[in-house]
Amino acid sequence: MRSLKAALIQREAQTEPGTDLDACLQAIRRVAGAGCRLVLLQELHNGAYFCQRERADSFDAAEPIPGPSTAALGALAAELSVVIVGSLFERRAAGVYHNTAVVLDADGSLAGLYRKMHIPDDPGYYEKFYFTPGDLGFRPVDTAVGRLGVLVCWDQWFPEAARLMAIGGAELLLYPTAIGWDPADPEDERGRQLDAWRTVQRGHAVANGLPLLACNRVGFEPAPDAAGPEDGILFWGSSFACGPQGEILAAASETAPEDLIVDIDLNRAEAVRRIWPFFRDRRIDAYGDLLKRWRD
Amino acid sequence: MRSLKAALIQREAQTEPGTDLDACLQAIRRVAGAGCRLVLLQELHNGAYFCQRERADSFDAAEPIPGPSTAALGALAAELSVVIVGSLFERRAAGVYHNTAVVLDADGSLAGLYRKMHIPDDPGYYEKFYFTPGDLGFRPVDTAVGRLGVLVCWDQWFPEAARLMAIGGAELLLYPTAIGWDPADPEDERGRQLDAWRTVQRGHAVANGLPLLACNRVGFEPAPDAAGPEDGILFWGSSFACGPQGEILAAASETAPEDLIVDIDLNRAEAVRRIWPFFRDRRIDAYGDLLKRWRD
Repeated sequence: MRSLKAALIQREAQTEPGTDLDACLQAIRRVAGAGCRLVLLQELHNGAYFCQRERADSFDAAEPIPGPSTAALGALAAELSVVIVGSLFERRAAGVYHNTAVVLDADGSLAGLYRKMHIPDDPGYYEKFYFTPGDLGFRPVDTAVGRLGVLVCWDQWFPEAARLMAIGGAELLLYPTAIGWDPADPEDERGRQLDAWRTVQRGHAVANGLPLLACNRVGFEPAPDAAGPEDGILFWGSSFACGPQGEILAAASETAPEDLIVDIDLNRAEAVRRIWPFFRDRRIDAYGDLLKRWRD
Repeated sequence: MRSLKAALIQREAQTEPGTDLDACLQAIRRVAGAGCRLVLLQELHNGAYFCQRERADSFDAAEPIPGPSTAALGALAAELSVVIVGSLFERRAAGVYHNTAVVLDADGSLAGLYRKMHIPDDPGYYEKFYFTPGDLGFRPVDTAVGRLGVLVCWDQWFPEAARLMAIGGAELLLYPTAIGWDPADPEDERGRQLDAWRTVQRGHAVANGLPLLACNRVGFEPAPDAAGPEDGILFWGSSFACGPQGEILAAASETAPEDLIVDIDLNRAEAVRRIWPFFRDRRIDAYGDLLKRWRD
């Protein structure tokens, strides 16, 4: 067994602005102390989820890459000899901002970037205002713990993204994410949404014979100018890891912060792909219309 | 609510060869009597699953399309005014045989065909010997109950197939299937396999905002020249229907035949796609490598 101990840091946004990165660094020390060699942070881990409103001054929080956050994460990665996958609000140029995952290798170097390709926009998640769609494509990143297929949040609903990472040789899919409920939604709808989110990602693991990690934030975040006590997002936590048959290996609370630690057998994917050889049988001669918006 | 009452006929192969089609016709009468307007049969419903061995005389069971089975199914479809989705061993020419789904419309006409595109081959499922890969592509079929995205068994592991049907306007995905356990597999592996099968298909429903029906056979079928009492396939039943968030609407037994009847709300897909507008955001500009076997 080629085993990899990994940690998913499921957090609430700090009440004191500007202290989230420190909280992440502390968490990374904790899980490295517990023997983890790979750490996955949640989406936009440096603060509250600001996309609940469209406000031009929110762009002030964006930073260059490399920049202060990659410097801090890289220094800690080198000190602890761990690989860290984080998620930043990137300022690439005036007027060009991205939602960008960063991969710091165990020697502290910036092993690679992934700029979120699929950008959502629905009530409370006004990301199309903030984030230019990624232009780096779907490329896995080589690190000391293996080749990582890093995607971000909304990407998790798109089988194409997972597939492109898998056929690019990714050994593991990782999703920093920020998703929750509208507190006004009834209980049954909440249940369907959470289960759909988990199911579609487990489905990517199955279809691609790959383990998968999804790290979500948790807790209620009021909108910046909340109209009432329910005007905000109740992030549903539920970070999880699954294996290449979609089997749940570890799962975190729906309501509380948690360092979720999991042992992943990186050899199991090849064993599973031998009995379920989907990659052998893909009908690439007949997939051309996947490049269309709609077949009409 | 634009509701559709559908039935999945989960059957054991008859012990008396040549009587399976009659058993199917009887089942269709039963569920039509219960008000169903769409009936889905299991894969290769006219007999036992013969692909457990490679035997040239098994080709004797193949038949042309249109042919005797489509005539019988079509006559019953017209009599009962139901749409029937069946699954036949097609003889297209000497040496060209397919695993073909047939769609009989409510007026008895043959509304369309789907020739299984992804062909498996693993111990006990020697389908590459029997079935020429389909050459009709992934095209949904228009019927009196809506536009149906009919796929077959092994296709269910391929997100590309579901996606192509969805962007072709399918309102419902349907999978006749024949899958089971090797009786020698331990309990935990059996559990992972069944759950992976269910999960990947529920994932297609989520990713495409579509309801989905999967009709599997059930019961133990010994191999034709079985080397012992465990030499065969234990088909795991578990036929199910889910909605466009992957939510289970109905599920059949793992061990017994069953007429599984389900009411499907065909309007719900559009409501779900409005809150989760995945089709709006697909990065068709960046999906080109999906047409490669591997990105190396």
